[in-house]
Amino acid sequence: MAEVNRVGMLTGGGDAPGLNGVIRAVTMRSISDYGYEVSGIRRGWKGLLSPEADSVVNLTVGDVRYILDEGGTILGSSRTNPYKNEGDAKKVVDNMAEIGVDALVAIGGDDTLGVARRLHQDFGTQVVGCPKTIDNDLSATDTTFGYDTAVSIATEAIDRLRTTAKSHERILVVEIMGRHAGWITWGAGVAGAANVTLIPEVEPDVDEMVSIFRKRAENGEKWGIVAVSEGVTFSEDFVTQTAEKDEFGHVRLGGVAEGLAGELKERTGIDTRHVVLGHLQRGGTPTAYDRILSTRYGLRAAEAVKNGEWGKMVALRGSEIVTVDLSEATEETKTVPDDLYGAARTFFG
Amino acid sequence: MAEVNRVGMLTGGGDAPGLNGVIRAVTMRSISDYGYEVSGIRRGWKGLLSPEADSVVNLTVGDVRYILDEGGTILGSSRTNPYKNEGDAKKVVDNMAEIGVDALVAIGGDDTLGVARRLHQDFGTQVVGCPKTIDNDLSATDTTFGYDTAVSIATEAIDRLRTTAKSHERILVVEIMGRHAGWITWGAGVAGAANVTLIPEVEPDVDEMVSIFRKRAENGEKWGIVAVSEGVTFSEDFVTQTAEKDEFGHVRLGGVAEGLAGELKERTGIDTRHVVLGHLQRGGTPTAYDRILSTRYGLRAAEAVKNGEWGKMVALRGSEIVTVDLSEATEETKTVPDDLYGAARTFFG
Amino acid sequence: MAEVNRVGMLTGGGDAPGLNGVIRAVTMRSISDYGYEVSGIRRGWKGLLSPEADSVVNLTVGDVRYILDEGGTILGSSRTNPYKNEGDAKKVVDNMAEIGVDALVAIGGDDTLGVARRLHQDFGTQVVGCPKTIDNDLSATDTTFGYDTAVSIATEAIDRLRTTAKSHERILVVEIMGRHAGWITWGAGVAGAANVTLIPEVEPDVDEMVSIFRKRAENGEKWGIVAVSEGVTFSEDFVTQTAEKDEFGHVRLGGVAEGLAGELKERTGIDTRHVVLGHLQRGGTPTAYDRILSTRYGLRAAEAVKNGEWGKMVALRGSEIVTVDLSEATEETKTVPDDLYGAARTFFG
Amino acid sequence: MAEVNRVGMLTGGGDAPGLNGVIRAVTMRSISDYGYEVSGIRRGWKGLLSPEADSVVNLTVGDVRYILDEGGTILGSSRTNPYKNEGDAKKVVDNMAEIGVDALVAIGGDDTLGVARRLHQDFGTQVVGCPKTIDNDLSATDTTFGYDTAVSIATEAIDRLRTTAKSHERILVVEIMGRHAGWITWGAGVAGAANVTLIPEVEPDVDEMVSIFRKRAENGEKWGIVAVSEGVTFSEDFVTQTAEKDEFGHVRLGGVAEGLAGELKERTGIDTRHVVLGHLQRGGTPTAYDRILSTRYGLRAAEAVKNGEWGKMVALRGSEIVTVDLSEATEETKTVPDDLYGAARTFFG
Repeated sequence: MAEVNRVGMLTGGGDAPGLNGVIRAVTMRSISDYGYEVSGIRRGWKGLLSPEADSVVNLTVGDVRYILDEGGTILGSSRTNPYKNEGDAKKVVDNMAEIGVDALVAIGGDDTLGVARRLHQDFGTQVVGCPKTIDNDLSATDTTFGYDTAVSIATEAIDRLRTTAKSHERILVVEIMGRHAGWITWGAGVAGAANVTLIPEVEPDVDEMVSIFRKRAENGEKWGIVAVSEGVTFSEDFVTQTAEKDEFGHVRLGGVAEGLAGELKERTGIDTRHVVLGHLQRGGTPTAYDRILSTRYGLRAAEAVKNGEWGKMVALRGSEIVTVDLSEATEETKTVPDDLYGAARTFFG
Repeated sequence: MAEVNRVGMLTGGGDAPGLNGVIRAVTMRSISDYGYEVSGIRRGWKGLLSPEADSVVNLTVGDVRYILDEGGTILGSSRTNPYKNEGDAKKVVDNMAEIGVDALVAIGGDDTLGVARRLHQDFGTQVVGCPKTIDNDLSATDTTFGYDTAVSIATEAIDRLRTTAKSHERILVVEIMGRHAGWITWGAGVAGAANVTLIPEVEPDVDEMVSIFRKRAENGEKWGIVAVSEGVTFSEDFVTQTAEKDEFGHVRLGGVAEGLAGELKERTGIDTRHVVLGHLQRGGTPTAYDRILSTRYGLRAAEAVKNGEWGKMVALRGSEIVTVDLSEATEETKTVPDDLYGAARTFFG
Repeated sequence: MAEVNRVGMLTGGGDAPGLNGVIRAVTMRSISDYGYEVSGIRRGWKGLLSPEADSVVNLTVGDVRYILDEGGTILGSSRTNPYKNEGDAKKVVDNMAEIGVDALVAIGGDDTLGVARRLHQDFGTQVVGCPKTIDNDLSATDTTFGYDTAVSIATEAIDRLRTTAKSHERILVVEIMGRHAGWITWGAGVAGAANVTLIPEVEPDVDEMVSIFRKRAENGEKWGIVAVSEGVTFSEDFVTQTAEKDEFGHVRLGGVAEGLAGELKERTGIDTRHVVLGHLQRGGTPTAYDRILSTRYGLRAAEAVKNGEWGKMVALRGSEIVTVDLSEATEETKTVPDDLYGAARTFFG
Repeated sequence: MAEVNRVGMLTGGGDAPGLNGVIRAVTMRSISDYGYEVSGIRRGWKGLLSPEADSVVNLTVGDVRYILDEGGTILGSSRTNPYKNEGDAKKVVDNMAEIGVDALVAIGGDDTLGVARRLHQDFGTQVVGCPKTIDNDLSATDTTFGYDTAVSIATEAIDRLRTTAKSHERILVVEIMGRHAGWITWGAGVAGAANVTLIPEVEPDVDEMVSIFRKRAENGEKWGIVAVSEGVTFSEDFVTQTAEKDEFGHVRLGGVAEGLAGELKERTGIDTRHVVLGHLQRGGTPTAYDRILSTRYGLRAAEAVKNGEWGKMVALRGSEIVTVDLSEATEETKTVPDDLYGAARTFFG
């Protein structure tokens, strides 16, 4: 193991509230407690693959002390993957050497961490990973920063929309992030007291939905909120309108909220509208929870560098931050289990 | 003038944060200070035109004391207009008599207040109006409740989106309410420090926009925020893609934000995305400002009933709540004047 | 085990955001999934010990569906403890029988749960507990609802105060809840990027603090934020002013923030002020996190009733809600461990 | 009138959310639209009276573009008044000349603007004022930035406290800023639906308060919220406890909320607590309203420099930003008029 003098750090993939918390904690612990120097690499792997004038920046305690409440990442991000083109990985390693980075903290999702793992395997790169997935779908860790903020934003949106739904006697269908895992929708559906919550893990029962809203209308509540993941698909016999099928033969509506709103309006006779939260869910100041979790991740990642835990990544297990093998990061998608979805179902109606 | 024993109250048109503040203030002042009884009419004019079992509800102080922080309207709303069908207006008047309502407080926009004005003219109905337009486009009043909340929500959205735009080096185009008047977009563009703000009142200069974002990119800021009203239209030679023309021969993009995002991406080479705030802008708990303004409106409306100021509506003039003729309400749309748009333009770049 | 037809439920001790989430989940799962009837008992044990006209209320799904975003408890609370007077416990048991409550869900802290445990032991009362402690100091569960909300509020307060501290070149000392355990202060200190964080678990080093703020001043930052738990005590030789000693011979300042502010001002020469957050930390709408956790607690508590898990309480372990013996609830106070306080210390400066 | 090449700008007195909005707007309009250079003066008049190394800073568009959402003032502030010591005013004028500042924008309250006015009178200094008073007590302008934010924070505090008051059947007395004028308390009392609102302008009727809370208790609401200005005083016969008298012979309680809480508890028999909001009310990110108002002030102030409107200050009149004589700024304190306090009184109970 080569001695560490300078730690590099990069963020890859989609942004998540809390990235700056990790950057800050890695930097401050590395400098103050371990005496390392720290280089921020701009735009993920791209900054190491094809460095521009501004791709490497020296980070001081003063640079990062007050970035904890900022969303996004001060280092920028990209989806560049050096394993997509033959020879690129080698270039990354060479460039790391060139700029004098002895150890690397890679913060990102499946893709970013997969590159980190392979660099470690193929070149012995001294790398430590930090998982980032706003979707909460990483099986290697109980949860990740960004998720709590996303759920909070979506919950506040539902809180706001409910008053409009009631005033106008409408159903409002809210489309929430989550292509393959319904965690954010599940969280916001439960916390926002949605009347129906739909996630990609469970095929929606449109007949049941229709009967829920009919029954509500009979009881004088001709309105409601549906929280639906963008990744929800419908069985073929559901759709009364033109729709395309996905690779599994499932029907994927143009926009799932828009399609579902049309269908519900048709079948219930209740005016139904839709809202797509989109980018609103991932930006802005992180919740206190995400600030603390990202800080703890960053501190433990710096400690892993100190310990030489190469090829590992930090993870939350219960109340503890531990390190696990980077290969675990990409093993399988963690989806919402039946019992948790059952929790949401108790409040249908 | 017939003596007043029971005041009726209804809310019409789109919901706005603050409606409950008016309802509360009218009810509490009418009962506590004047000794009236108060009836809430459900679903706007519909509740008087075709009453159902739940269309009229007696309101007590206890019913309304704690509704000030609730968005929407506890009375519900509709777009029913009794002047659309011959004979309906008469039915409304008869039904008012039937349920013993001697005076009516009508809370709503152009349409709702137009009906109130005509009922007063045609039948001598003892009516007082209260203006409601989240769009701030009513010339008879300096501002109305709901506007501040809408601007606040859109501003917070821009605050959040900025961190994503920076992290990913993207332009984000945010579509904000306002078909004919750009007030909300103007407010959120200014308060949110948008890099470009576009309103329906001023034809957008796409070339200028492109050059702003190119210059920003040259200075190392390859990202930006565009705040755009849903009602903005483009001149014909702008659009490189299929687009339909509106009644004035202007090009109306499918969704203005979506269309503009495509165009900016094409011309600047910067990744550009869009977000449509939609219903999020009008629901949920009102700001303190809107709670206070709606309360003052409600108190003054009750006072107008006491004074017999029939055919009048309440309005804000400077720091004062005054009454003006209902006919003023519908006179002309108040649009964003040049000097205020100039204020927004100072911050372009 | 006696069959369950009617579940009683009460909340005792200080209020916490999330109590209504538990009440709602217990009620809805009990009625919808298990067919029980549910009685809410008002004012904790007082409602069973000395029932008044309004002490017992039948709860329906409609009563609780939309209380999830309300702080406090719709059932009210008290600090009545039926084990303080001979014979009172028996009265509670008799009154439960009288109102036909076969099983009881007791939601509260040490004191409330201690009563629940003894009733189960002494009378075989069919009781299930749900832990509530905003202070996060219960060793039997990883965390409890209310804590996240309290940390969020205190963090937002620090965010706000920082701008004043900078503008006026002042130190601001913020007094945060926590008599014996510093969890809330630790969380808010970390999330709020405080310059110094002091908790009851660790004796404060005033000399170190003074040197931190002197060094900051030398670097042009003549300001700072200190997050301090109300329960922090100081060693005798610290205090230059009159102060009383506590039972352990430690010096307890009148108000800890006020005393510390005076001392820091004296020693650093920097203008220093204090703020006491007090009741602000425990009220109001719960965060999404606390809404979800309290809901999961309530669902599991209802399930425990169904399973006849008498004398147990629900608890969070990792990502799972489990049940543990009620005796565990009161075993020992969970304090902030050294490594977590070390995390906060990394950011001192 | 001397030609203007470089505009100086300073902020004096207590901080207010929105100061950065003025600084930003003055800077951007001065540079982009008028071609001036801009110098920020640190720590108010102190920065001109006794300049240190960091007292004058050149401001660019890049320095200020994104400070709109920051509370406080990037220029810092002080309470230094150069008219307190003979000869100091002259020094200020000389130092302005020394650093090449031809025109000065002074942002502050009575004190700061009073200095600006005298410098203009005594030395012909080319000065423009911008009023800042979170207390809203300046008669020359309809409102000022910072007030809306302060009211919003205090309103949110009341919203939170209400749930605790209800859960524990307590009266909570909330002490809000306002020594001589009750505007913030009035606003928060109205917006927060307080049960009683007390302001310095009107002597409190404790008997009435007691009877309000007794009546509430009889109706099953043994709780309530009192919003009280820090500057409220009580008549002598009120106080059952030791208390000191102020210059007018009025009784000023140690802390008004604490004293009043003790009194209410004594007389109503209801558990009563108090909270002092203190510094929380003036810090942190400004509301959208205050961002817009401060921006408009700043733009108009720059315009006033351009126009050579020396000795004037900007002010809001209705929807317009105008300029008025600086002497108007200090003329008289604007207090809450009877009719507005009457509005608050309607909701007592």
